[in-house]
Amino acid sequence: MVVSTEPTAPFLRACLGLETGHTPVWFMRQAGRSLPEYKAVRGEGSILDAIADPDRAVEITLQPVRRYGVDAAILFSDIVVPVNAIGFGVDIKPGVGPVVERPFSGPADLERLRPLEPETDTPYVLETVRKLVTQLDVPVIAFAGAPFTVASYLIEGGPSKNHGRTKAMLHDEPELFAGLLDRLADMAIASLSSQIENGAEAAQLFDSWAGILPPSVYRRAVMPHSAKVLRAAKALGVPTVHFGVGTGQLLELMAEAGADMVGVDWRVPLDAARSRLGPDVAVQGNLDPAVCLASWESVRSEADLILAANAGRPGHVFNLGHGVLPETDPTVLERLVAHVHDTTRS
Amino acid sequence: MVVSTEPTAPFLRACLGLETGHTPVWFMRQAGRSLPEYKAVRGEGSILDAIADPDRAVEITLQPVRRYGVDAAILFSDIVVPVNAIGFGVDIKPGVGPVVERPFSGPADLERLRPLEPETDTPYVLETVRKLVTQLDVPVIAFAGAPFTVASYLIEGGPSKNHGRTKAMLHDEPELFAGLLDRLADMAIASLSSQIENGAEAAQLFDSWAGILPPSVYRRAVMPHSAKVLRAAKALGVPTVHFGVGTGQLLELMAEAGADMVGVDWRVPLDAARSRLGPDVAVQGNLDPAVCLASWESVRSEADLILAANAGRPGHVFNLGHGVLPETDPTVLERLVAHVHDTTRS
Repeated sequence: MVVSTEPTAPFLRACLGLETGHTPVWFMRQAGRSLPEYKAVRGEGSILDAIADPDRAVEITLQPVRRYGVDAAILFSDIVVPVNAIGFGVDIKPGVGPVVERPFSGPADLERLRPLEPETDTPYVLETVRKLVTQLDVPVIAFAGAPFTVASYLIEGGPSKNHGRTKAMLHDEPELFAGLLDRLADMAIASLSSQIENGAEAAQLFDSWAGILPPSVYRRAVMPHSAKVLRAAKALGVPTVHFGVGTGQLLELMAEAGADMVGVDWRVPLDAARSRLGPDVAVQGNLDPAVCLASWESVRSEADLILAANAGRPGHVFNLGHGVLPETDPTVLERLVAHVHDTTRS
Repeated sequence: MVVSTEPTAPFLRACLGLETGHTPVWFMRQAGRSLPEYKAVRGEGSILDAIADPDRAVEITLQPVRRYGVDAAILFSDIVVPVNAIGFGVDIKPGVGPVVERPFSGPADLERLRPLEPETDTPYVLETVRKLVTQLDVPVIAFAGAPFTVASYLIEGGPSKNHGRTKAMLHDEPELFAGLLDRLADMAIASLSSQIENGAEAAQLFDSWAGILPPSVYRRAVMPHSAKVLRAAKALGVPTVHFGVGTGQLLELMAEAGADMVGVDWRVPLDAARSRLGPDVAVQGNLDPAVCLASWESVRSEADLILAANAGRPGHVFNLGHGVLPETDPTVLERLVAHVHDTTRS
């Protein structure tokens, strides 16, 4: 039985649609290559090595909170951490993304996906979260890749433009595809649960590729597995955030999957998204990260349009529609946080 | 004054929302690397060389019409043909896409964009169209890149993931951006007009990147320039098709820009698109090209869902939501054309 008390942190309150003293802000990929202090501690080699080193992972997670004064920290992680940890043979190549030695191609590969045991497979994640919560006065968001997006990497063997193998399997071998997503859902649940048990206070499910699907296919082949993850996180008493990009056609379904808050990218006006989702679903977004490469005047003007579109309604977390681009000037993001806070302070 | 008589070709009739004896079909990028006969005649070097050789361009354009029995041919071309022809310094690198020697970065670059004189700059395009129409009993669709998409290549210097420079210019230097798009619109008008005057019977405007913009920005910075091109083509008495991908948020605006038919990709269900656009706007689409890599049973099943979503309404041209993928088995597309024709024959 979950004891539910109203949270005080603005980010958590906004997730739940509660009033806040200002609009909370954080940025996807706020920790990362746009920060000189990140480059100073990141080190060489795979990003997975930095993630597996609690001291570095803690420092990297804290850096943007210190610099920007954002309202949430997100565990420095990657969606392939669990599948890498159980030995599926996944690495992250700099400038490429996740690459898989032997892609998932048939029923025999299901056996290669054993359950994740967070205490022994990813003890560094637990240690990082534990250390973080002692040093932060904003919530830590637990991090997990959604079953569909992780599956697409395992099937394609790496980043793909058209996801032809993924879609062929989805249509031609629906049971195999469901078996894969079900195992990945269980791994996401185990990972999120371990992060929450160690102090994370919210959970974000990253479904970066869901937007390549039409609603009918998403509803049938993807949504049940994401819903299972979101339900499990919710049962642990934390707010849930469901992220996608290019998912304008899926917003209602991403909410129906059981999320407290749905990510909206810049393609969909925030007022349109709120009308479609209704007052009971919070929204996160939706500044175009590429706009942050323009002048401060343009950034401020676009941010103001977003705040105007939300019109002061509770249940809005200001964020970019996708991750911070590496070439972003951090001083623009500093000004942006201050501007959103100042403009919305009640 | 345009003398308007009702066309007889099913493709042209469908563009105008008129009844047809069967649902017309063609495929974007139907001429190309998925066909062995294309590889046999394409030759080495830049695709721009093949486009500039009327004998090869005619043969390549005809190949899919012969093989598939599609209801339209589209001029074998590329969106950068006009800017290349006036000497802006654009080439198409195999496996990369358009690359620009000196990208467009400031007011001085406007001078590098002189008007297109089709008779002298692209005489090969005119010759190709003239030869094609004598050999075809289906309409030839004239081909032009939309100002925004061409501009994004000129500004970025090549394919781009985030279009940061394009968006920065759009927001920070709106007059310069408008000046660029206006010149590109004039070039598109000149090119389309020359194709139509030489026998093309419809015009498709390719705005492949428009989907990266929200509606408010599209309406302000892009739509007026595309509307100018569509109006000019329409004034020459041919139906107009407005293509985009990932443009679910822009469908109404793409119609409002003055198109008879709007391209719909697979992310938006066709019945939803038709409801939004109303009975006076035809739709083209919307099978996912990646689905064509699955089994024939899956392809047929997805095609049947599209036909069911259209529910026999006039004003539907069956197409993919984007271009044919190079690894597509041409026999699947052969069966698909026959299946759509057979299923919809009245």
